[in-house]
Amino acid sequence: MKFGYFDDVNKEYVITTPKTPLPWINYLGTQDFFSLISNTAGGYSFYKDAKLLRLTRYRYNNSPMDQNGRYYYIKEGDTVWNPGWQPVQTPLDSYQCRHGLGYTVFESSKNSLNAKLLAFVPVHDNCEINLLTLTNYTDAEKEFDLFSYIEFCLWNAADDSSNFQRNFSTGEVEVAGSTIYHKTEYRERRNHYAVYSVNHPVNGFDTSRDAFIGLYNSPADPQAVRKGFCSGSIAHGWAPVASHHIHLKLRPGDSVSLVFVLGYCENPKDKKFSAPGVINKEPADRLLARYQTTEQVMAAFQELKDYWTTLLSAYTIQTEDVRLNRMVNIWNQYQCMVTFNMSRSASYYESGLGRGMGFRDSCQDLLGFVHLIPERARQRILDIAATQFPDGSAYHQYQPLTKRGNMDVGSGFNDDPLWLIAGTAAYLRETGDFSILEEPCTFDNDADSTAPLMEHLRRSFQYTATHKGPHGLPLIGRADWNDCLNLNCFSEEPGESFQTTGPNDGPVAESVFIAGMFVKYGREYAEICDALRLDDERDAVLKEVAAMEETVMDAGWDGDWFLRAYDAMSNPVGSKLCEEGQIFIEPQGMCVMAGIGTDITEDGSPSTAARALRSVEERLDTRYGIILQTPAYTTYHVELGEISSYPPGYKENAGIFCHNNPWISCAETVLGHGSRAFEVFKKTCPAYLEDQSEIRRTEPYVYCQMMAGRDAPTHGEGKNSWLTGTAAWTFTCISQYILGIQPTLQGLRINPCIPSDWSGYTCRRIYRGVSYDITIDNSAHVESGVASVTVDGQPVTGTLIPFDAGKKTCKVEVVLG
Amino acid sequence: MKFGYFDDVNKEYVITTPKTPLPWINYLGTQDFFSLISNTAGGYSFYKDAKLLRLTRYRYNNSPMDQNGRYYYIKEGDTVWNPGWQPVQTPLDSYQCRHGLGYTVFESSKNSLNAKLLAFVPVHDNCEINLLTLTNYTDAEKEFDLFSYIEFCLWNAADDSSNFQRNFSTGEVEVAGSTIYHKTEYRERRNHYAVYSVNHPVNGFDTSRDAFIGLYNSPADPQAVRKGFCSGSIAHGWAPVASHHIHLKLRPGDSVSLVFVLGYCENPKDKKFSAPGVINKEPADRLLARYQTTEQVMAAFQELKDYWTTLLSAYTIQTEDVRLNRMVNIWNQYQCMVTFNMSRSASYYESGLGRGMGFRDSCQDLLGFVHLIPERARQRILDIAATQFPDGSAYHQYQPLTKRGNMDVGSGFNDDPLWLIAGTAAYLRETGDFSILEEPCTFDNDADSTAPLMEHLRRSFQYTATHKGPHGLPLIGRADWNDCLNLNCFSEEPGESFQTTGPNDGPVAESVFIAGMFVKYGREYAEICDALRLDDERDAVLKEVAAMEETVMDAGWDGDWFLRAYDAMSNPVGSKLCEEGQIFIEPQGMCVMAGIGTDITEDGSPSTAARALRSVEERLDTRYGIILQTPAYTTYHVELGEISSYPPGYKENAGIFCHNNPWISCAETVLGHGSRAFEVFKKTCPAYLEDQSEIRRTEPYVYCQMMAGRDAPTHGEGKNSWLTGTAAWTFTCISQYILGIQPTLQGLRINPCIPSDWSGYTCRRIYRGVSYDITIDNSAHVESGVASVTVDGQPVTGTLIPFDAGKKTCKVEVVLG
Repeated sequence: MKFGYFDDVNKEYVITTPKTPLPWINYLGTQDFFSLISNTAGGYSFYKDAKLLRLTRYRYNNSPMDQNGRYYYIKEGDTVWNPGWQPVQTPLDSYQCRHGLGYTVFESSKNSLNAKLLAFVPVHDNCEINLLTLTNYTDAEKEFDLFSYIEFCLWNAADDSSNFQRNFSTGEVEVAGSTIYHKTEYRERRNHYAVYSVNHPVNGFDTSRDAFIGLYNSPADPQAVRKGFCSGSIAHGWAPVASHHIHLKLRPGDSVSLVFVLGYCENPKDKKFSAPGVINKEPADRLLARYQTTEQVMAAFQELKDYWTTLLSAYTIQTEDVRLNRMVNIWNQYQCMVTFNMSRSASYYESGLGRGMGFRDSCQDLLGFVHLIPERARQRILDIAATQFPDGSAYHQYQPLTKRGNMDVGSGFNDDPLWLIAGTAAYLRETGDFSILEEPCTFDNDADSTAPLMEHLRRSFQYTATHKGPHGLPLIGRADWNDCLNLNCFSEEPGESFQTTGPNDGPVAESVFIAGMFVKYGREYAEICDALRLDDERDAVLKEVAAMEETVMDAGWDGDWFLRAYDAMSNPVGSKLCEEGQIFIEPQGMCVMAGIGTDITEDGSPSTAARALRSVEERLDTRYGIILQTPAYTTYHVELGEISSYPPGYKENAGIFCHNNPWISCAETVLGHGSRAFEVFKKTCPAYLEDQSEIRRTEPYVYCQMMAGRDAPTHGEGKNSWLTGTAAWTFTCISQYILGIQPTLQGLRINPCIPSDWSGYTCRRIYRGVSYDITIDNSAHVESGVASVTVDGQPVTGTLIPFDAGKKTCKVEVVLG
Repeated sequence: MKFGYFDDVNKEYVITTPKTPLPWINYLGTQDFFSLISNTAGGYSFYKDAKLLRLTRYRYNNSPMDQNGRYYYIKEGDTVWNPGWQPVQTPLDSYQCRHGLGYTVFESSKNSLNAKLLAFVPVHDNCEINLLTLTNYTDAEKEFDLFSYIEFCLWNAADDSSNFQRNFSTGEVEVAGSTIYHKTEYRERRNHYAVYSVNHPVNGFDTSRDAFIGLYNSPADPQAVRKGFCSGSIAHGWAPVASHHIHLKLRPGDSVSLVFVLGYCENPKDKKFSAPGVINKEPADRLLARYQTTEQVMAAFQELKDYWTTLLSAYTIQTEDVRLNRMVNIWNQYQCMVTFNMSRSASYYESGLGRGMGFRDSCQDLLGFVHLIPERARQRILDIAATQFPDGSAYHQYQPLTKRGNMDVGSGFNDDPLWLIAGTAAYLRETGDFSILEEPCTFDNDADSTAPLMEHLRRSFQYTATHKGPHGLPLIGRADWNDCLNLNCFSEEPGESFQTTGPNDGPVAESVFIAGMFVKYGREYAEICDALRLDDERDAVLKEVAAMEETVMDAGWDGDWFLRAYDAMSNPVGSKLCEEGQIFIEPQGMCVMAGIGTDITEDGSPSTAARALRSVEERLDTRYGIILQTPAYTTYHVELGEISSYPPGYKENAGIFCHNNPWISCAETVLGHGSRAFEVFKKTCPAYLEDQSEIRRTEPYVYCQMMAGRDAPTHGEGKNSWLTGTAAWTFTCISQYILGIQPTLQGLRINPCIPSDWSGYTCRRIYRGVSYDITIDNSAHVESGVASVTVDGQPVTGTLIPFDAGKKTCKVEVVLG
């Protein structure tokens, strides 16, 4: 079942009912001010940090779901309704929610009164703009009341939801004309306030929730709306809110447009007040002056649209598959940008209370946005590297505001260092900017301990090379990519963190997955050494890599697939010998991507790699994607940790963990299996699951972290949409491994691996400032193999397009065969 | 305006409308299992620890207020209603909520169907019992549906409200017959589950919130109730709930009684499962078997009533003032017991997420409950002392579960050590049990560092004696009793804790309040030394105390009142010289209670103490009580800290902080001002404010921490009811200082200080196992002064009643004059 449709021309997903199976959301904001907005206008806003500077209050896990947002009540006679349906839930005569790139539009109507609500955050201001246009489609004059409503958060969202003995006494506001200022704690140490205004005279206002909503009423039935007027309340403590009341008359066919602005304003410390106790409103005045007219708003909206058009022009395809086109050209890249902006902080599953940027998360996200915003990717890499420990290991997360590492989830996740190589190598391939390797970066943010980025990569590699267990495989530490495989934890107490309990490291537990990473990213590191003409280091690295490859084939192979790990007793994990958890997805994908076991066999039998992927298909595949391992753990295994804490089929315990599905897809392309690679790609790709939205439940335009596996009673149900490394990896998979447009250190390489029934496709790729128009001809209907390449009419040998910075455009014709 | 009335015979407060100005709550539970319950059946339950073992989910600061509770939906035709009005809010034909001692009863009716809901936690079981009796008062048969509803919390309430990316995948339940088992995380490290059952066959059930309520419905309109049947849902992740559906028919005049039990059950680790994946239900079976019949329930209810009757028999009075009688005999002592059980953890203002027991809080609470439960008070003292540092200073809080000190709010609150003397001295006066002083107690919970309790008291005294500032007054450290007077903090950053920022101690900032405490509790310590015949130590202590008294009179006196402190620059705080905050309440109360400046002057002019109290009356008094200081701080003072962070009139910034009002009342009795003492007592006493409930808003049967001061726009509005040291201090004030029934180390002393218009009163006091019947005759209409004392017919000299452990009863007649 569908609950909307893709509008590819406008780059929008159009939701046609407010009652989606879960709230379907969008993100507004590109720089510092962000909002979450659902298809019923729910959500909240924050400035830079979702925990520390939250402007509006949201109620997670509420009943009803998705409560608090930017709400507009229209009261015509006894009928009260909202353009977004919530919170009153009056059945609407028409309803539409269009989620676009950085904006959302609601169009709905009741009794021939039409409301169009456009919500967006402008590129250059710290505010959310709501342009509300009301049109009378009847033959008679309409007279009605409009009430706006937002509820302020007292800035620190964690404190706001727990410290009531203080917070019920601190709330303060000011009101001037049509503008409401939220200034809680401004009297003391805050130099910032929030402002909520409308470009129209008001008939009344409220700033106390009790006055507007009523103590025992709900936002579904505010007492002020019921009465038809606000009471001019000034909040003193309790819950400051903002509501404007505007009485409106519309002649037949007439429209009125109102601009509501929710903004964040700062003052210098010595200019906080214009008079004792009165806040300096200058920054708010300046902000609001820029959005006083519909024309100003539409100009800012156009600027936002241009921003996104420019961004997404870096990679566009045309294939015969419209679902593929819309995912690659619009939604997958859009989601990558959202992961750049949000990391894992604020979604409808991430409450915005954790403040960390993951070391590993951020390095991987980078794979998905480096081509969109290479300059910001550069800074991100340097920020991450600056938190690395001198021995090459890493904090597992760092604070985005201070850019310092923190121990909230500890350290000793032994895959972390290698992801720094992965991210940096991707940046180098995209930009060719080797100067980044010379940038000085601190260790552990210690200004006295600094080395060029290249030295950080070296220590990343060496950390893994020097931390091996009894089988010669890398020690897993607290965990590798699978945070829930905790082999040194042994937790018996409820509530203990699986990620910080037990020793940072153990002398025994090893990870085959990290071994695969070591081979893959070790080779990428060797390529960098090669480019820097560090031939000795390159050779030494490749020797280490080759040895590890051998170790994996020896100690890491279970007979039909790669082992997952050895536990703290040196027992295999992910082996036929196990009762549960016999085969895991991660090492199959990573080892084959690394090229381990891919050598053609002499007798024509399947290669080791092919056998591993066949085992994946036979044992882990489902209609909704590949599950993480099988059989699911039915009891708690103290020696394995959190993975066995989930009910079978959910999350890491045999759920479809979407992040690692593209690894299998990529691995299949390594073996030239284009059809299978694309089949795997499609299984978790949201656009292909749109018809099953009643099962998947999450947004059909973005990936989710997890779908319930076949062991779960809700097989196919998605969770944790939006903020997941899945976005970056699926984009890497489709754009580079399948469609085969591959940045390399030397330039763009074209090497598709596609379903044989495809006839071809085109791609426009802006790469190092050059716009490539690439045509792929698969009249031969092969899965892979390049027969010829022509660049601007000239044939070239091989698949690498010689880079010419002097060109503005470059036409590439590739024939497969 | 009143919203109910006191029923003194039944020891109940009867609320007659569900729409009280704020939710008015009660506490159920006496040992380990506790519930909060509001007058609309809202609230939640927990076992031992409101953060770590919360059974049901509550939504703090919700809109509408007070959402989630134990809800029962009665659906008769199209009419759906709840016995507690919430959450459906259908207007009821009749409604009554009776909050009693450890139980609450709702009686309400709709269309002549009557519902009586009794809720209590039995003395000896870990469960809340809901006995629901439905009666048909019409002449026709009634047929209707009943739905129960609770929402489970996933145990750790902090994690439950933030970690959705995990928690939406962990929920698990089992259902057997009419019993629903909530077993989230039981599969892994938890050995406990919750059970919710009814003693009646069910027509259906739901355990998924989405199935019962509906994603976009609210508890005000569950979709299952609307349809008239449950769907038999089994929760897999998301939000596990429990709902029973029972279809009922009642003939005219007939009743049916149903017993619902919400329980907490544990299993030994090796007996968790009865079959793979199936929880061992034996402890639940045993629990439920004890509450299968109404008779069993009523027997447990009677046991609970007896428990409270016994407790409260320790101190009962009869005066001409019924409001005084009900506060002293019932509600004030009841609130003291609630502070014993809850500390500051779980109220409608304390979210239950902080886990600490305050060192100072617990010592002071003890003053209010030591006469009720001396054995448990003894253990509490030893627990607290065991967290003390070897130098006599203290953690500011400790964990109730582990009984270890923690640094969540730091240490260095320099009043803390002296409160240990205060609490222990109170225990000794009540019990005469000097053996407690010989109990070995650790320092900082270090088994290798142990000393008898007496040594802890010694170090408490010495810590203060050896930490003095330039004026010879005690250093204030992070703060003294007023946590918000932070003289060494100097915080400029929003969100920094005023309690943990800056140094633990400063070399300069001093507290006159601690000086007062040092004199008062130093003397009490000297009395203990005296009783132990430590004459030298006694003399040394008294010498130190005398010196401090002199220092206060010298450096701590501002001319018309006692100074509050010297700040970190040695500037006075609470002085005529200040622009704001010229006079504070705390030192006036504490210094006079300590006897400082009480000497009669030779010229008959008012004593120093009297001048201080007159200044309080002139400058700080309001109709709702005495404000904390004046003038209120209108701007932030970085050198004073949090006190200046509150808007004027709220909390410590010139709010009526109820806790310190009884100090003034006590101080007035020290000067013999019985009328004024009682006048001050009455101002904050809830029973006397019942008629102003629309202004005070909080429960008229319990004290609140704070009422808005005269500088606030909401003067008289109460906040933070229930969990406040106010309860202990007001009870100490009325029972000992005003009514004058004073435990001493030697026995009971009778020394009233009362309004002169009183003719007398009687008191029954159980003290060290002897029941005293005390009659006070004030035919002379004096404020204080004992003319004669007769004990069992024999006149005695002085006011001390010689203690005779051989007596069971003792009749005391006191004539004032």
